[in-house]
Amino acid sequence: MGSLQDVRGCLVDLDGTLVRGQQALPGASAFLEALEGRFVIVSNDAEHTPLELSRGLKRLGLAVNQRRIVLAGTTALDEIALRLPRARISMMASKSLMTYARDQGLVPVQTRPDIVFLGRDRQFSYERLMIAANAVRDGAELVAANPDLVHPGPNGAIVPETGALLAALIACTGPVPHRVIGKPEPALFEAGLGLLKLPKRAVMMVGDNPATDGEGARRFGLRYFEIRDGVFPLLGSAPSRHGSTGALALTA
Amino acid sequence: MGSLQDVRGCLVDLDGTLVRGQQALPGASAFLEALEGRFVIVSNDAEHTPLELSRGLKRLGLAVNQRRIVLAGTTALDEIALRLPRARISMMASKSLMTYARDQGLVPVQTRPDIVFLGRDRQFSYERLMIAANAVRDGAELVAANPDLVHPGPNGAIVPETGALLAALIACTGPVPHRVIGKPEPALFEAGLGLLKLPKRAVMMVGDNPATDGEGARRFGLRYFEIRDGVFPLLGSAPSRHGSTGALALTA
Repeated sequence: MGSLQDVRGCLVDLDGTLVRGQQALPGASAFLEALEGRFVIVSNDAEHTPLELSRGLKRLGLAVNQRRIVLAGTTALDEIALRLPRARISMMASKSLMTYARDQGLVPVQTRPDIVFLGRDRQFSYERLMIAANAVRDGAELVAANPDLVHPGPNGAIVPETGALLAALIACTGPVPHRVIGKPEPALFEAGLGLLKLPKRAVMMVGDNPATDGEGARRFGLRYFEIRDGVFPLLGSAPSRHGSTGALALTA
Repeated sequence: MGSLQDVRGCLVDLDGTLVRGQQALPGASAFLEALEGRFVIVSNDAEHTPLELSRGLKRLGLAVNQRRIVLAGTTALDEIALRLPRARISMMASKSLMTYARDQGLVPVQTRPDIVFLGRDRQFSYERLMIAANAVRDGAELVAANPDLVHPGPNGAIVPETGALLAALIACTGPVPHRVIGKPEPALFEAGLGLLKLPKRAVMMVGDNPATDGEGARRFGLRYFEIRDGVFPLLGSAPSRHGSTGALALTA
């Protein structure tokens, strides 16, 4: 695990790693280019679709195909649709995710859902909390897109994340079994690895958050590189290939 | 503590003790009448004023003067107004409590509050959660009217209470010092005892909830009678006064 020479692809976190706020971080674009397509972005985003995010990244100067983006919200919905096709689903989520759920054959409902789905719902309210709590109490399965409590906003402002809404819900229902999809749980790592089509030992997780990226990679069995002070990993930069320029290169 | 003969007044819980849903419980009216005014209702209600509740109880056939009602929401605001007169206060609360706060000289604001106040806010939202979390992060003091997670609704439905909203807020801010006013904390017991003008040893707490009424009474040093199966305590029912009829009577 000491050498990065045998790394052939990366799973890469988004917020804090490639972008911050509305800006790409220095070196992010060069890092992705050097990976020559052998990367998948894995993010706890519980609000957008890969297509939306791909468009957003393009505006920031990062060209990333939507098929290289794995997000907690849509991955959770994929998982539900696969396991319970046409499930009745009560969604506390963005309009994008509601549309995405319908596209996967799920049936958003207000009453008697099979599943209560919790994403980063900016329309979260006392009323929605009550509806969700009673649905779970009445037997609906609970799925939360990610466990994050907050998201760093502009100037360090607190932006509530899915986990904070989950805290209110669990406070109402008491302890109930539930699934959480986002990092550090394995689902995003699995989905990302599936897209890379590489063996685990050849893949590295690159992120900035020890609790989600680092802990998740450790549990899933991926080596982990933590971005600090904006320094990206140098992959396969053996002198025989690129001299000592520090340029990124992947072993084929 | 075994005898009830020396009980000269009661603090009485409301929900589950005197009323349930929109009905007075059998025996509640007779119990209050037998107390001949020597009672104070102490409730974790974090939404109404004593005047509103007095009117509501009248409709249920319970005549209780507003001066005999101590509620968590208004008691919390009383305490803030006494400690920090004219404090700037960001309120997640009912309109009634907002009006009450103004009447106490407090100044409801949207930005840069001294205090963030959390009651049972049916307008609670993602937006309000974010505003409150950032205000607390920026140094505002946090006061929650009660610690209750839920309130029993019609047909056993879950009705979110102040404590569930607090759970979301604390999830966002991380652990922060904060004050909680409702039972089992001592504030309502103190306020109730002050209105009764009786020594602690002559006062009994009557309630239905071991975690709030019982635990609060124990910590505050009041004896406690728990209502079970709708049976109210018989106070001072010595044969010399009322025979064995079971009628309630207080020692003077």
